[in-house]
Amino acid sequence: MPELRKDPVVGRWVIISTERGRRPSDFPVEPVRPRGGNCVFCPGNEAKTPPEILANRPPDSAPNAPGWSLRVVPNKFPALRIEGELEPSGEGLYDRMNGVGAHEVVIETPHHSASLASLSADTVAEVLLAYRERMVDLKKDPRFEYILVFKNHGGPAGASLEHPHSQLIATPIIPIMVTEELTGSAQYYEMKERCVWCDILRQERRSRRRIIAEANGFVALSPFAPRFPFETWILPTRHRSAFEETGIDELRGLAELLGDFLRRMDRVLNSPPFNFMLHTAPLRDGPLEHFHWHLEIIPKLTNVAGYEWGSGFFINPVPPEDATAALRAGGE
Amino acid sequence: MPELRKDPVVGRWVIISTERGRRPSDFPVEPVRPRGGNCVFCPGNEAKTPPEILANRPPDSAPNAPGWSLRVVPNKFPALRIEGELEPSGEGLYDRMNGVGAHEVVIETPHHSASLASLSADTVAEVLLAYRERMVDLKKDPRFEYILVFKNHGGPAGASLEHPHSQLIATPIIPIMVTEELTGSAQYYEMKERCVWCDILRQERRSRRRIIAEANGFVALSPFAPRFPFETWILPTRHRSAFEETGIDELRGLAELLGDFLRRMDRVLNSPPFNFMLHTAPLRDGPLEHFHWHLEIIPKLTNVAGYEWGSGFFINPVPPEDATAALRAGGE
Repeated sequence: MPELRKDPVVGRWVIISTERGRRPSDFPVEPVRPRGGNCVFCPGNEAKTPPEILANRPPDSAPNAPGWSLRVVPNKFPALRIEGELEPSGEGLYDRMNGVGAHEVVIETPHHSASLASLSADTVAEVLLAYRERMVDLKKDPRFEYILVFKNHGGPAGASLEHPHSQLIATPIIPIMVTEELTGSAQYYEMKERCVWCDILRQERRSRRRIIAEANGFVALSPFAPRFPFETWILPTRHRSAFEETGIDELRGLAELLGDFLRRMDRVLNSPPFNFMLHTAPLRDGPLEHFHWHLEIIPKLTNVAGYEWGSGFFINPVPPEDATAALRAGGE
Repeated sequence: MPELRKDPVVGRWVIISTERGRRPSDFPVEPVRPRGGNCVFCPGNEAKTPPEILANRPPDSAPNAPGWSLRVVPNKFPALRIEGELEPSGEGLYDRMNGVGAHEVVIETPHHSASLASLSADTVAEVLLAYRERMVDLKKDPRFEYILVFKNHGGPAGASLEHPHSQLIATPIIPIMVTEELTGSAQYYEMKERCVWCDILRQERRSRRRIIAEANGFVALSPFAPRFPFETWILPTRHRSAFEETGIDELRGLAELLGDFLRRMDRVLNSPPFNFMLHTAPLRDGPLEHFHWHLEIIPKLTNVAGYEWGSGFFINPVPPEDATAALRAGGE
């Protein structure tokens, strides 16, 4: 029997469509395997990107030259532009604003054919640290209200380059999905005086029905009402609203769990394309009792179609309990 | 310069990313062309679908046999099941409900290789009339709160069968996207005592910057803040909240404009895959002063990626004014 389930944070219902119940092998994907070659993100081609904003490189190496282990550069085709003041304006009943923002690319490694799943935990920790460093720096710009870090891995997940990279976009506006999480979690807090994600963690760690893996103060779990098959969240077990306040040791612990999860996903789902998105508190909010940062990971296995676009109601053919069991079994 | 624009109904901002400005030819699609063949929706295979709920057929023809011009059947692999009472239940802090609902398929024509763009206006009107008839009938079932009619055309838009068909899903819950439109438009109405879509129509018909076509009491326009390149809305110029109260003559007029628009889209974008979704008022609401039914059409040209999934903030590389100009020029 299919089931309707409600996300306890944003109140979004999903349809868990067991009639269409599917196993991992029912989602044939073209595995993401870099064809290699020499790309604009490869060492030696530093001049083909805008000048680097941040790089991990030996002290004696020149900027924008080989020798680095990680680079952050402005996106060459940015969705938003860094220059200019905010200028809200109207057109009759409509509102617009000039597109001020930052759009940066984190080149995660010099190795074209690597991936976050194959890199060492130390290297993944370097990537997470770069996210933190860029967030701390961009936070100083008073025009920005929010920074979203995300990754598109593989063409069907929206990546136009195969060299391992992630991106961040800083905007003068808090994105609607974050607002929905903030509103929902504030309502919950008002009622219970507890963080809803802390409550989720407590319940899931007790029942263990949807816990995929847990280590070093982080949990990877299947949410109760996932929009997508094998959607997974990684959360710190200790309450914290802002990702950028995570300590270096904690980031190392997160890097281990993230790598472990991505290798599970590669084994169970045949190296699928995927996206991940970091949900953290808005830049100006200070520590929040009701918000809990988390990383959302969604393998790209299905096409979103008319019903979802028209309703916001997602039809998910894989119960999260089945996804959990498969991903648990896919451990090393 | 890129621009941020806000949808005046739901308050969702989008990024109109002119840096990535694209013309129709920059979106190479595999044109949707049926390969033909004999499928489960073709005449002669009526026994391969569940028994018909509604059919347009001569009075002397037997049900579930050839001779029909349109059939409505239950979906063989329904996302929700028609049997059973609503049984809300909990699991700790979570809410669930058994998946009661209706999931039906409208087989639009006996001709496997036809499409809504190639069918006569009379035949398209027959399809729209079938939507209305099924809505009026399902409305009698007190378990249902909402019916969403939608179409997936072409594999990349989620269609698993190429024979022309649309679908409807009736749910015991009002989908979150409709709730957002209801909330936003009620707030607008409270402030202005006018329907926000009526105001949009007035402003757009005056400026004509985003009007693609207008005929028979209907307007096809590019919304001010579209999520997707070439996203188009069709609305009745006269205020009405419930689609199912549209008269037969009006449906004939809508059929003409819809066919005209789909042919423009096929010419300009090379017969792309697409989705459309009908947004109408909830079943139990009676006529609403603040809600205005409309059809949303989105060609499937781009992949939604991490930023959009994480933020709800869509990056659209085609300003709607450019989309309007291209679709206007694509008229017959």
